[in-house]
Amino acid sequence: MEFTWPIRVYYEDTDAAGVVYHSNYLKYMERARTEWLRKLGFSQEVLREETGNIIVVSEMDIKFVRPAKLDDMLEVNSVLIKVTGASFLFEQSIQKMQEKICSARVKGVCLNALTFKPQRLPAALKSELSHVN
Amino acid sequence: MEFTWPIRVYYEDTDAAGVVYHSNYLKYMERARTEWLRKLGFSQEVLREETGNIIVVSEMDIKFVRPAKLDDMLEVNSVLIKVTGASFLFEQSIQKMQEKICSARVKGVCLNALTFKPQRLPAALKSELSHVN
Amino acid sequence: MEFTWPIRVYYEDTDAAGVVYHSNYLKYMERARTEWLRKLGFSQEVLREETGNIIVVSEMDIKFVRPAKLDDMLEVNSVLIKVTGASFLFEQSIQKMQEKICSARVKGVCLNALTFKPQRLPAALKSELSHVN
Amino acid sequence: MEFTWPIRVYYEDTDAAGVVYHSNYLKYMERARTEWLRKLGFSQEVLREETGNIIVVSEMDIKFVRPAKLDDMLEVNSVLIKVTGASFLFEQSIQKMQEKICSARVKGVCLNALTFKPQRLPAALKSELSHVN
Repeated sequence: MEFTWPIRVYYEDTDAAGVVYHSNYLKYMERARTEWLRKLGFSQEVLREETGNIIVVSEMDIKFVRPAKLDDMLEVNSVLIKVTGASFLFEQSIQKMQEKICSARVKGVCLNALTFKPQRLPAALKSELSHVN
Repeated sequence: MEFTWPIRVYYEDTDAAGVVYHSNYLKYMERARTEWLRKLGFSQEVLREETGNIIVVSEMDIKFVRPAKLDDMLEVNSVLIKVTGASFLFEQSIQKMQEKICSARVKGVCLNALTFKPQRLPAALKSELSHVN
Repeated sequence: MEFTWPIRVYYEDTDAAGVVYHSNYLKYMERARTEWLRKLGFSQEVLREETGNIIVVSEMDIKFVRPAKLDDMLEVNSVLIKVTGASFLFEQSIQKMQEKICSARVKGVCLNALTFKPQRLPAALKSELSHVN
Repeated sequence: MEFTWPIRVYYEDTDAAGVVYHSNYLKYMERARTEWLRKLGFSQEVLREETGNIIVVSEMDIKFVRPAKLDDMLEVNSVLIKVTGASFLFEQSIQKMQEKICSARVKGVCLNALTFKPQRLPAALKSELSHVN
C-alpha cells in the first residue's frame, strides 16, 4: 500500500548549482511520513504529549538519481516494508512525472522523548500499522 | 485583494524551543508570494529563463507575535500594497486560526539574474499587477 | 563595543539564483548574537536550564543590500544599542570585505520557555549587559 | 589521513525534539568535505567557474546513533576511502567528545554544471587526491 504526497520546489529548497540541495530530500521524505501517519490518525505532536515518545530516523540509505529544480512539482511515494516492536522500515522515492529523482530506505525508531532510549511502539500505532502493512 | 496560502508546520521548521524557528516564517512568506505569482500566471523559473530577471526581497520589517508549533496548520495572507516600475510592496501575515503569529512588510525588487542590477518589472507582469492592485 | 563573528557561505546557504537565500542571513545574525552571549559567559542552553527562560527575536527590520555568494567569507558585526528590563536592541550588519551585504535592527525579548510569556532578563545577564552597553 | 572540522550547534540546527534535526548532519558533513577540498587548494566555486563541473553527492548511507543538542561542539571526521575517474568515496563521522553522533558513507560524483552528466574529475584535483589517498 503506497502513500503519495505532493511537494512543490521553492527557492528555499534549491542551491547555487540550480537544483534542490541534497539534504532537503530528507525533509521531503519526512513530510511524507508525517502525512502518512496523520492519515492513519496519528499526529507526532499528540504522540509525544500522550506517550512521551517520539519517532526518529535511525538509518537511511539514499540514492540521488537526478536533480529536481525550482518550481518542479514532485511526488513522494512511501511504502511501509516492515514493522517490529520498536522500529519501522520504509521505502520512499521521489518522482518528477515519470522520472526518479531519488530513492531511500529509511529506518525509524520509537524513542523516549526525554532519555532518547528505544521504546516499544505505542499499542494503538502498532495495531494500526499491522493493518496497513 | 488578499491571497491566502496554507502551510503545515513540520519538524524541519521547529527548533529546540519547541516552536517554529524565526527565519522559517520568511520561507513561508516567500512560498505564499510565489504561489500568488503562479496564480497570476507567472513562474519564477520561467521569468528567469524568458527575461533574465529575478525577483528578490530587498527589505523586510517583521514582527514575531506568537509562536507556531509542530503540526500547526497556518495561513499566510498576502496583500499587494503598491507596485512601482521596479518594485512591489506586500503586507503579509501568518495566522493560526484567529491568532496572529507574525506580520511583515516586504519589499521585492526585480534584478538582472547575472549582474544583480535593478531592472524594470517585465511588462506582462507589471500589467497583470496593475489589475490586481 | 562591536562584536565580530566570521561566517563562511556553503552550498546549503545558497539558492538557485546563485546567492545566499535571504532568510539565511537571519541565521547568520543569530549565530553572531549567540557567540556574543557566549563570550559574555552565557549559553542559551544553560540559560534555559537554569532560569527556564529563552531569548527570542520579537522584531526585525532588515535590508538586503548586495548578494553574498558561495564560498564567500563574511563578517557579522553586532552592536548592542539598548537594554531594558525584558528586551535588547541590536544593530547587526553583514559585510564581505568592505561591502555591506545586509543590515538589520533586531529586538530580542526574554520569554518563559513553557508559557512564552515575557520575563525580566535574568539579573546576572542584565548586569553583564549594562557593562557592555 | 583524516580531516577534522569543528561544528557548533545553533538553534537553527535543532528541532522540537530538542536535538539536531537529522537532515542537518548532511549539511555538517558537506561543510567538512568542502573545507577538506579547500585545504587541498580547491574551491567549489572556482572549480565550477574554471571547469564547468560541480561535485555532488550521489549516494549516502547514514546511521544516526545519538542525538546532538543545542550548543554542542561537534567534530566531523572525514576520510577519503577511494577515488575513481569520476567519483570519490568518503567515510565521515560526527563525534561529540568521545561519543559517536552519526556516521556515513558518502559517494560524490563530478557532473557537468549545465547538463548534470557525469564527468571525469579535473586532472589537478585527481592528481591531488591520489597523493592524499
